[in-house]
Amino acid sequence: MEGDPTLQLRVFDLNCWAIRYLSKRRQERVRLIGDMLRQEGFDLVLLQEVWSERDYSDLKAKLGGCYPFSHYFRSGVIGSGLCVFSRFPILDTLLYQYSLNGYPYMLQHGDWFCGKSVGLVVIKISGIVFNVYVTHLHAEYCREKDAYLPHRLVQAWELAQFIRHTSKAADVVLLGGDLNMHPEDVGIRLLRGWTGLRDAFAEATRFEGCEDGCTLIPNNCFTVKTELLPFPLGIRIDYILYKAVSSFTVKCEELKTTTGTAPGMDIPFSDHEAVMATLHIRRQGQAADSNLGTAEPTLADVVTEARTEVGVGLRAAQRQRYSTGRMAVLALLLLLLQAAAALGTLAGLAAGQPFPKLSFSLLAFFAIGILLLATGLHLFHTIEVKMLQGTEEQLRMALRALQEHP
Amino acid sequence: MEGDPTLQLRVFDLNCWAIRYLSKRRQERVRLIGDMLRQEGFDLVLLQEVWSERDYSDLKAKLGGCYPFSHYFRSGVIGSGLCVFSRFPILDTLLYQYSLNGYPYMLQHGDWFCGKSVGLVVIKISGIVFNVYVTHLHAEYCREKDAYLPHRLVQAWELAQFIRHTSKAADVVLLGGDLNMHPEDVGIRLLRGWTGLRDAFAEATRFEGCEDGCTLIPNNCFTVKTELLPFPLGIRIDYILYKAVSSFTVKCEELKTTTGTAPGMDIPFSDHEAVMATLHIRRQGQAADSNLGTAEPTLADVVTEARTEVGVGLRAAQRQRYSTGRMAVLALLLLLLQAAAALGTLAGLAAGQPFPKLSFSLLAFFAIGILLLATGLHLFHTIEVKMLQGTEEQLRMALRALQEHP
Repeated sequence: MEGDPTLQLRVFDLNCWAIRYLSKRRQERVRLIGDMLRQEGFDLVLLQEVWSERDYSDLKAKLGGCYPFSHYFRSGVIGSGLCVFSRFPILDTLLYQYSLNGYPYMLQHGDWFCGKSVGLVVIKISGIVFNVYVTHLHAEYCREKDAYLPHRLVQAWELAQFIRHTSKAADVVLLGGDLNMHPEDVGIRLLRGWTGLRDAFAEATRFEGCEDGCTLIPNNCFTVKTELLPFPLGIRIDYILYKAVSSFTVKCEELKTTTGTAPGMDIPFSDHEAVMATLHIRRQGQAADSNLGTAEPTLADVVTEARTEVGVGLRAAQRQRYSTGRMAVLALLLLLLQAAAALGTLAGLAAGQPFPKLSFSLLAFFAIGILLLATGLHLFHTIEVKMLQGTEEQLRMALRALQEHP
Repeated sequence: MEGDPTLQLRVFDLNCWAIRYLSKRRQERVRLIGDMLRQEGFDLVLLQEVWSERDYSDLKAKLGGCYPFSHYFRSGVIGSGLCVFSRFPILDTLLYQYSLNGYPYMLQHGDWFCGKSVGLVVIKISGIVFNVYVTHLHAEYCREKDAYLPHRLVQAWELAQFIRHTSKAADVVLLGGDLNMHPEDVGIRLLRGWTGLRDAFAEATRFEGCEDGCTLIPNNCFTVKTELLPFPLGIRIDYILYKAVSSFTVKCEELKTTTGTAPGMDIPFSDHEAVMATLHIRRQGQAADSNLGTAEPTLADVVTEARTEVGVGLRAAQRQRYSTGRMAVLALLLLLLQAAAALGTLAGLAAGQPFPKLSFSLLAFFAIGILLLATGLHLFHTIEVKMLQGTEEQLRMALRALQEHP
């Protein structure tokens, strides 16, 4: 900031949809993304769904000249998919894996295997400390009956808490990512209200891109059109959020999105649109962080709403824990019955009748299979119940704090 | 601090060994712990291995008068076992679950099921912000051939990083818990070096208790004597660590441990000894946090040593990932062979011979079982490899930072 009162920062955010073997024209698109990033020369690039470390390495090799600093966050079976490229040195990193992230048996959705997380990189530019967060929350597969809403709310709460606890020494906080929530959803209101983060789209002086800032649009040839039928313009689920923590102000001068097919190309970069923000950071006399205070009456309502939804999820998880436990007990009883029958036969109680070895073995294997599966699921849902209870309690604590110190 | 330049804080830390159905005389001991805590009136109580939420509720009901504020950290299948009782209001909490924590199939050790974590509670006393951390790291079952060392090192590193990133606005940092590491172990040197935390035992002006501050001693009737054979005095694995972050100094005036059987009782509180510290916190002119700077040449060696150990764990995990993957492929091949044989029989290729239904079904079930088990293990070891790689990379980054800014 010495000599220059305003720092300009150009931030790029994109869910790259780079799933090996599954995403269409992946390698070609990753190449295009790399070319564009090199040409545009942003200050900070936040990417999601870069699932293959090979793709990350390729990007790193290509972008080494203009973005000499980068970090890939490893997590889960596949990897978190999160990575950051930066023109400025990355001083430190930390990864926080969300405690709930869907179900391992929902193979067709696959979120569980990604170990969804939030990654933090600390960067210092002209003496200003930036805490930059990149994340990707659990997808929404059916908006009418969204079974993953409680998990996504737990993630939104953990994200908010993680940002609050880790950003206390930062001057500026930036969050970019695919939050899988519409702007009016309870999770994003909770996140914004609890952290004081502002939405670059809502704050931007100039905007250029898809109508309403949508980042999943019917115009994009890779999106599933039927899913977007209720939203003719598309939906906005990718965000750049920011706030100044200490005596700085941040202003979004310009926000842009891509609009389906990239200029001069025949395909888009991804099934999502990229979000690009130009931020102006300026030092000022007094602290600018007064969001939380002014918004508290509404925030209490948001916390209550979130708590209700988490409660719904908790009761569903408790029911599943109970039914899987009962299934395990039944399978165990069946096995014990079989053992008794086998012992009876050995003791010669049914000497006259032939022993049905084949069906007996098949039944035993079936029972063992059910027992193992049900026990595994029971353990999983026990963890789910614990984490939902924990979040509900924390939301209750937050509510009490808001009510006690209005 | 107004009017009184020194704040005295009495901290209590104990691994309670309160495992339902397994720990001896659990309920009696939990009662005794509650009675003693009520009588002694500490300022802060940090407990581990309170696995049963019922035990926590009982303690909470009993201690409500003298410790009106408390928090139980939920995590994993059984719960984290971590809880805090405080005379002062708890302003905020956060839980961080370690990314690696043993193996689910090591049922006899069971650490995996506890979801080992570090819990943070934020407390303000006389205007001083305390970040209080309570944790319990993976146990060491065989010191000569410690298969869990890489996991414990990952936990120590994550603990250090979590403390560093979350304590930047705190005036005083306190960490209490069962670290399952001897004072000279690489993990504790890494934790202390990277965070600047000081060991209350080493810094105490007065000490009273077991020789060398040991917290697992042969004199305690619940400890396994054979495990302590190489250590006639016992071992010290439970700690209270502290540091002042901003312009404060912390001094340990007195450190005490229990010494086996508690006075006036016939049993000890736990198989571990309790650690009790009396800290004096004083405001001073300039910041006291210069530990990291002075110790850096040694710290680089410690980081290198930790990185080597994590590397050993990484190679072991890669081997296990490979062998479980191969096992899954073999089971799949066996199943395919069986399918071919069954099809051959259906097509009448072996019309003359009787088809061995029973052994065929048994073999098929066996192959399916192996396939599922090996696939599950392969996924698990893939995660393990990712997390060890991630930690190794972070340690490399830390080392570079230490070398670049000596």
